Amino acid sequence: MKIIEGGITAPKGFTSGGVHCGIKYRNKDLSLIYSKAPCLGCGLFTQNKVQAAPVKITRAHLKNNKAQAIIANSGNANCCTGEQGLKDARRICKVVADKLGISPSDVLVASTGIIGKRLPMERMEKAIPALLDRLSNERSLEAAHAIMTTDTKPKQISVELNLGSAKVRIGAIAKGAGMLQPHLATMLAFISTDAKIDKTRLQKALKEAVDNSFNLITVEGDTSTNDMVLMLANGLSGNKKLNAKEFMLFQQALNFVCLSLAKMLIKDAEGATKFAQIKVEQAKNITQAKQVAFKVANSALVKTALFGSNPNWGRIAAAAGCADSAIKADRLDIYLDGLKVLQKGVVSKVDRQRLNESFKKDEIEIKINLGLGKSATRVFTCDLSGKYVKINARY
Amino acid sequence: MKIIEGGITAPKGFTSGGVHCGIKYRNKDLSLIYSKAPCLGCGLFTQNKVQAAPVKITRAHLKNNKAQAIIANSGNANCCTGEQGLKDARRICKVVADKLGISPSDVLVASTGIIGKRLPMERMEKAIPALLDRLSNERSLEAAHAIMTTDTKPKQISVELNLGSAKVRIGAIAKGAGMLQPHLATMLAFISTDAKIDKTRLQKALKEAVDNSFNLITVEGDTSTNDMVLMLANGLSGNKKLNAKEFMLFQQALNFVCLSLAKMLIKDAEGATKFAQIKVEQAKNITQAKQVAFKVANSALVKTALFGSNPNWGRIAAAAGCADSAIKADRLDIYLDGLKVLQKGVVSKVDRQRLNESFKKDEIEIKINLGLGKSATRVFTCDLSGKYVKINARY
Repeated sequence: MKIIEGGITAPKGFTSGGVHCGIKYRNKDLSLIYSKAPCLGCGLFTQNKVQAAPVKITRAHLKNNKAQAIIANSGNANCCTGEQGLKDARRICKVVADKLGISPSDVLVASTGIIGKRLPMERMEKAIPALLDRLSNERSLEAAHAIMTTDTKPKQISVELNLGSAKVRIGAIAKGAGMLQPHLATMLAFISTDAKIDKTRLQKALKEAVDNSFNLITVEGDTSTNDMVLMLANGLSGNKKLNAKEFMLFQQALNFVCLSLAKMLIKDAEGATKFAQIKVEQAKNITQAKQVAFKVANSALVKTALFGSNPNWGRIAAAAGCADSAIKADRLDIYLDGLKVLQKGVVSKVDRQRLNESFKKDEIEIKINLGLGKSATRVFTCDLSGKYVKINARY
Repeated sequence: MKIIEGGITAPKGFTSGGVHCGIKYRNKDLSLIYSKAPCLGCGLFTQNKVQAAPVKITRAHLKNNKAQAIIANSGNANCCTGEQGLKDARRICKVVADKLGISPSDVLVASTGIIGKRLPMERMEKAIPALLDRLSNERSLEAAHAIMTTDTKPKQISVELNLGSAKVRIGAIAKGAGMLQPHLATMLAFISTDAKIDKTRLQKALKEAVDNSFNLITVEGDTSTNDMVLMLANGLSGNKKLNAKEFMLFQQALNFVCLSLAKMLIKDAEGATKFAQIKVEQAKNITQAKQVAFKVANSALVKTALFGSNPNWGRIAAAAGCADSAIKADRLDIYLDGLKVLQKGVVSKVDRQRLNESFKKDEIEIKINLGLGKSATRVFTCDLSGKYVKINARY
């Protein structure tokens, strides 16, 4: 497997583009991804009980596992908009479908932005011909730009791997920034592939990749109403039916694509200045491991300590101690960047200068050893900075 | 019942004082509360699994429900300090007890501050004679000062009520600031009363008062390793055995004392500029009500919106929607300061100007109606400001 150029349009037969239609005051806000060949489509959606109209419509359009285009806007979430919001989401799919000459149910729709406002339908519809004109296999970044909200950079990645005698490609774009948490948080990710793969395997591969990437990141612990990860596979690479080993290679490549994007989302989270990996080891079970990891990752006290380059491991111990009632304080070890600061619940002697130095790095590893069993997990998060507060006080 | 002067020393027979012993660079850091008569004592402690030495020692000293003094320091939590920490906590009790001529097990000990450092025992012991000299029934504020960490103001309250022919008083001091959450978060509260009351009733009354006050507040959702609420009753008011109605009056007064202190803690939370009451109504049960209320109260996105006076109710809907899997989006109503912004999951027409104005107030009420049952709760929280980040990046 190797990383290649091209993003979402790296796989054969995919084009994309973006325009400014006027949902936002400025910057591109409407994005289209199109495959010239019909695709097998699948998706994973937010588990928030408040779900936006595009989530409901895209779910419905994916019932037959067929799709050929994704229309996505930023600046407006089309959420809490009732029947009108559903009508608007359906209408956008129909307008795009008519222009592309495909069925409306083969168009998937995604939105991200402010909750509780109707989409400016007239502006959006008017912009669609221009958007179709932008479609090109060199405009992945443009599509990635047009789905950004408070993101500061567009996010894309693409890889190529050999499956039997065929070359297969996977490409993707994503947006993130805030309201990020496990189970798909305000986050859109669109993935394309020219692999020929059956429905069951595609769904299985996507779920595994998402569980090990987007579901392991958190900015502040709030899931959003609009999240989705969509994947389209058009089969144009001409590969034969994948054998078990080839499927494993495909899975690994997809895992890499999703994890790379997930890390980009955290690194570009609202106001983030640090990237932290929280590892939990020797947990009783995976539920406990995740509970501790997310409690620490979401702790405002831990996150402000990260921001201040302040190796205040007491806050990590306190966060772990209230994550799960089965934690035993006298079995707890904590390592900051490989340095043991707590051993069996008691402060360790540690080279304070080395500790301070290592906590100034941009990427920090916090390891918590619970001493209770054999389960482990890791979670990725960022710090909580003054800029995060500024961004979210205004937005 | 009426509010009176005197704080923790308002009840008969109680004195208090505070000194600077040198745990902190400056400001008072060692506090003593003493009753000239032996007291019935009871306490409630943090549910964090990582518990500081003073929590363990005070629990042990309260086994016989007898107590006569509370020694408390700020600046050092005496937590994660192992056997040495336990020895140090025991030693402080003994030094105080010897000077007062009482049993070491009648001295309760509390600490708050940085985790993982040994107490500076020599400085503390040296300061105890001076601390005893400060004991007076006019130095409640001084004792309240000496337990402060990042608090900006000392917190005290006292009330008087008639129980039969006797006048009974309840007084209290507390500290809070950060790491605040239900189940006693870095928070110390000491309550005195001259009521004569039996053990079972005193414990019952304290638990009810704490459940309806300190356990309903949250700053950022982290519980601390050192929290405790201690209550001493010396019986000096000379009241007769309380009948059911008198006990109810006592309970109401104690509830008032605890709720008043809890609100003071939130108003003086780290960097707080706003006070918010989150009400959840029509929940399926109390667990669901609390889950939703705390999820909203702890949401960094909701808290930064509060800070920015930004009535972004979409974030409240999103936080509620991920609090519990039984939430139904199409039954959800949200009110901001009495204005309905969401009805059955759909945005309501609302006077935007009035909404903006009311969101600028220092105290804001957010009401969430789940439309699922009959349970209700309320939780108190504050906003998340740039100052919170600054304070915690440094501390």
